[in-house]
Amino acid sequence: MLDASGQHVHTHAVRVYYEDTDAGGIVYYANYLKYAERARTELLRHHGIENGALMRSDRIAFAVKSCSADYIKPARLDDALEVRTAVTRLGGASLHMHQDICLDSATLVAIDVRLACMDIDSGAPVRLPDVVRDALRQVL
Amino acid sequence: MLDASGQHVHTHAVRVYYEDTDAGGIVYYANYLKYAERARTELLRHHGIENGALMRSDRIAFAVKSCSADYIKPARLDDALEVRTAVTRLGGASLHMHQDICLDSATLVAIDVRLACMDIDSGAPVRLPDVVRDALRQVL
Amino acid sequence: MLDASGQHVHTHAVRVYYEDTDAGGIVYYANYLKYAERARTELLRHHGIENGALMRSDRIAFAVKSCSADYIKPARLDDALEVRTAVTRLGGASLHMHQDICLDSATLVAIDVRLACMDIDSGAPVRLPDVVRDALRQVL
Amino acid sequence: MLDASGQHVHTHAVRVYYEDTDAGGIVYYANYLKYAERARTELLRHHGIENGALMRSDRIAFAVKSCSADYIKPARLDDALEVRTAVTRLGGASLHMHQDICLDSATLVAIDVRLACMDIDSGAPVRLPDVVRDALRQVL
Repeated sequence: MLDASGQHVHTHAVRVYYEDTDAGGIVYYANYLKYAERARTELLRHHGIENGALMRSDRIAFAVKSCSADYIKPARLDDALEVRTAVTRLGGASLHMHQDICLDSATLVAIDVRLACMDIDSGAPVRLPDVVRDALRQVL
Repeated sequence: MLDASGQHVHTHAVRVYYEDTDAGGIVYYANYLKYAERARTELLRHHGIENGALMRSDRIAFAVKSCSADYIKPARLDDALEVRTAVTRLGGASLHMHQDICLDSATLVAIDVRLACMDIDSGAPVRLPDVVRDALRQVL
Repeated sequence: MLDASGQHVHTHAVRVYYEDTDAGGIVYYANYLKYAERARTELLRHHGIENGALMRSDRIAFAVKSCSADYIKPARLDDALEVRTAVTRLGGASLHMHQDICLDSATLVAIDVRLACMDIDSGAPVRLPDVVRDALRQVL
Repeated sequence: MLDASGQHVHTHAVRVYYEDTDAGGIVYYANYLKYAERARTELLRHHGIENGALMRSDRIAFAVKSCSADYIKPARLDDALEVRTAVTRLGGASLHMHQDICLDSATLVAIDVRLACMDIDSGAPVRLPDVVRDALRQVL
């Protein structure tokens, strides 16, 4: 998909359930990060890459190194949200992503996240596998 | 949908993400109850009934009064699960449901839940609205 | 501690935060199971036993095999709860516990749980280590 | 408490339970935000201010407007963490906080958060009540 500025983005639909909300009647602020992680996972799965398989076969995983979120408007129970994900920088062993959590094309929460590919046994940085790099280039 | 015994059931697909798992490498035991609640919500939504609207317009909500779960086999990261929901008893202001959380048609977790329809202001029991009753009868 | 009937119980304090509540203004039904698991963990820690160490050194973990919960009254934001835990049956490789989640000595949620001690590599049942058995006997 | 640089900070102890971890064996990245929110809540409670009471009596709540987190080292099951919270800017209707989530005085995750005091009915910004302002000044 192309967003308004012509950027290729991956989109993932998320529904808001009771589990996501809090006594303020809105989605709890940490839970948007769950939505963002689901969307990153589905972006890879769309290209045949699964986190569990990466962990078991390649002994690698993606670690979030930093993350920032702007909370513009709250999401509420039953909202049908869309997470739009683009890669903003693609390094050797790390990458930056921008993710908008949207309702009816208005951004409710804007997230920037930096991820590192690492060896799950040593914790050392690992070069992104080519198959992952190719998948991520589709939304760069 | 009909299950193996000819019972009408509602089915809802759930994917297992990192957020659902724990350091044991499997889905954390409380999180299956989230899957079950999502499925109950989608059963109603399938018939045009939304929890948020019930709360705002009718001032009613479904409270879980009791719940039991048998953990047969664990679900794991990336599993594509299916929640199968049937109504096992339909009372005036309450109902019983059976829910199977399945992987490839094997039941991993079997859940029985009793729900009561209640006034969210007073907490008093409220007769199930006819539109809700009709929806639930489809899987009774 | 002794409860009203003279039963030895382990008590664990839990505070209700926004993360635990939902748009209904009360604690989300699955989250009481988190409180119960924290209490079981602290019961063992009180006797010098840690889940992480059991997993790393002995390659064993406790799996919840079944669980039932009666929801009597809801807990709310800021409530200072107490979880009271007793062992109701102690087998070779499994045990039953009863846990009351209380506010001001009234039980809000009553939980019965059956746990099995298992080998985390094979999933096979494992006899409870003596140090665990001795700890659990204190609240039997 | 004073931190190393002589800054007054509020400290709050957090234990890592299974519910907080994921299949990677470490605390799931969104869950550190729960720890941070618990610590902010306890900072206010230490001065006799409760979120629930603010909501019911004053019809106000604190909304997170933005949040950033640097993930330096992961926390693991059973870790006894400490959240250190300081106010870094105190405005009329909003404030900035810095929060370090520490293990044995090493910072694992560093969080900056901007909060706004708002009317829960209209969503409009509201001047911080004096009692809240006085509490926050203790760690400014």
